[in-house]
Amino acid sequence: MSSSAAPAYRRMSVEERRAQLLRSAVDLFGHRRPEDVSIDDVAAAAGVSRPLVYRYFPGGKQQLYEAAVHGAAEELIGRFAVPSQGPPTGRLAAALDRYLAYVDEHAPAYGALLGGGGVAETSRTGAIVDGVRRRAGEQVLRHLGVTDPGPRLAMMVRSWIASVEAVSLIWIDEGRRPPVGELRDWLVDHFIGLLLVTATTDPEAAEAAARALPQETRDSPAGALLARLAPLGPAAAHLLGGDGATP
Amino acid sequence: MSSSAAPAYRRMSVEERRAQLLRSAVDLFGHRRPEDVSIDDVAAAAGVSRPLVYRYFPGGKQQLYEAAVHGAAEELIGRFAVPSQGPPTGRLAAALDRYLAYVDEHAPAYGALLGGGGVAETSRTGAIVDGVRRRAGEQVLRHLGVTDPGPRLAMMVRSWIASVEAVSLIWIDEGRRPPVGELRDWLVDHFIGLLLVTATTDPEAAEAAARALPQETRDSPAGALLARLAPLGPAAAHLLGGDGATP
Repeated sequence: MSSSAAPAYRRMSVEERRAQLLRSAVDLFGHRRPEDVSIDDVAAAAGVSRPLVYRYFPGGKQQLYEAAVHGAAEELIGRFAVPSQGPPTGRLAAALDRYLAYVDEHAPAYGALLGGGGVAETSRTGAIVDGVRRRAGEQVLRHLGVTDPGPRLAMMVRSWIASVEAVSLIWIDEGRRPPVGELRDWLVDHFIGLLLVTATTDPEAAEAAARALPQETRDSPAGALLARLAPLGPAAAHLLGGDGATP
Repeated sequence: MSSSAAPAYRRMSVEERRAQLLRSAVDLFGHRRPEDVSIDDVAAAAGVSRPLVYRYFPGGKQQLYEAAVHGAAEELIGRFAVPSQGPPTGRLAAALDRYLAYVDEHAPAYGALLGGGGVAETSRTGAIVDGVRRRAGEQVLRHLGVTDPGPRLAMMVRSWIASVEAVSLIWIDEGRRPPVGELRDWLVDHFIGLLLVTATTDPEAAEAAARALPQETRDSPAGALLARLAPLGPAAAHLLGGDGATP
C-alpha cells in the first residue's frame, strides 16, 4: 500500500501527515480494543509504511493512542466554543448541536473515549477525559458570565455534562433515537431546570440565573420552556397555597 | 496469619466465609489496581490460607474480582429499595440517603466500580455496572408508578443516575463537601427539575408527574422546592406575559 500512497508523501506537510495518521488511529481505536490495534494496522489504514508511523510517533502505539484520545478530546471541547451572542440558552443549544454532530459522526471514537467498556484506560487518558469535562464545563459557565465557579456551580455543570455523556451513549446505542434536534432541546431544558432548582439554594447559581434571564427571549429555549411549564402550576396549587396551612 | 485465624474456620458457615473473602477482595480492589492485587493479598487480608481462597473461588483472581464487583453492585441497587409510602420525593430522598451512605463508607470501592481510572474493566464488569444503573433506574421509576418506561422516561432516569454517580465521585474527591444532607437534597431537587422539564414534552413524564404531585406535601422535597421556585417567577415575567407579543 505504501507504494501507491507514495506521492502523498510529497504532497502532505508534516502537520497534515500527523493529522492523517491520527485520524486513522482514532478510527481504529474507536472500533477495536487498543490491544487489538497494531502499528501495522495504522500504517495500512493511512496507506503509509510502518517506519513512517514511527517517525511521527516514536513512542509507538501508546503514544499514538494517547495522541488519538487527546485529539478527540480537543475536538469535543472545541464544539462548546460558540459566539457569546444572543440568549445564553440559545448558545447552549448551538454548542450541543456541534457536540452531538461529533457524537453522530464519530460514534465509535466517542464511545471508546467516554464509554469505557473494553478500552484499556490509562491514568493519562483518564486525565485527558477529565480535562474534556472540566473545559467543557468552563465553556458552558462562561456563557452564564461565570469564570471562577464556586463548588456548587462547578458540581452542577459537571453533573449536567455527565448526563450529556450518558445520554449521548444511550442515543448511539438506541440507533440515534430520538431525532438529534429533540435530544438537543431536551438536554438544554435539562440544563435550565437544573440551574433553576440549584438557584433556589445556591446564591451564585441564583445570580447566574438572574443575569441570564433578562437576555432570554420568548423564542429562546428558556422562554419556550417556561411557557410550557406555566400550565403545570395548578397541579401544584396544594403545595403553593397562600393560607399558610401545612397539611 | 492463617494460624491465628484458624478457629474462625470452624465458626463460619460457607456463606459467611464467602462473604468475608468478598469483603476483603472488595476492599483491596477498591484501593489498588486489579493487577496489583494477588490471591495471597486477599488471603492475608481475610486471615486465611491461599488454598482456602481457591476453594471458594476456583477461578482465582478474575472470579474474585467479578464477584466483588457483583457484590458491590447488588449492595448499591439494594439501597434504592425503600418502602412505597409517603410522598415520592421523600422516598427518593430516603433512597439517596442510603446510597450516599454506601458511597461514604466504601468510597474506594465505589470509585473503583464507577470511576474507571486504572481499573482494568472487562466487558463482564462493564455489564454489571450497566445492570446497577438499569435496576436503580427501575427502582426510581417504580415510585413514580412506572414499570415499563418509554424511551424518554428511561433516558431521563439514566441521565439522572449518571449525574448522581458523577456527583458522588466529585463529592469523594472534594473531601465530602457539601455535607451529605445538602448533597442529597440537591440531587432530589435535580430529579424533580428534570422530571418537570421532561413533562413539558413527554406525555408519559407528564402523567408520572401528575400522579406524583397529589401525593406530595408542603413538607416533602417537591413541596419545599416549588415554594422556593415560586419567587423566581417575576424575573421571567418578560417571557410569560399574557399580551401575546413576542420580542
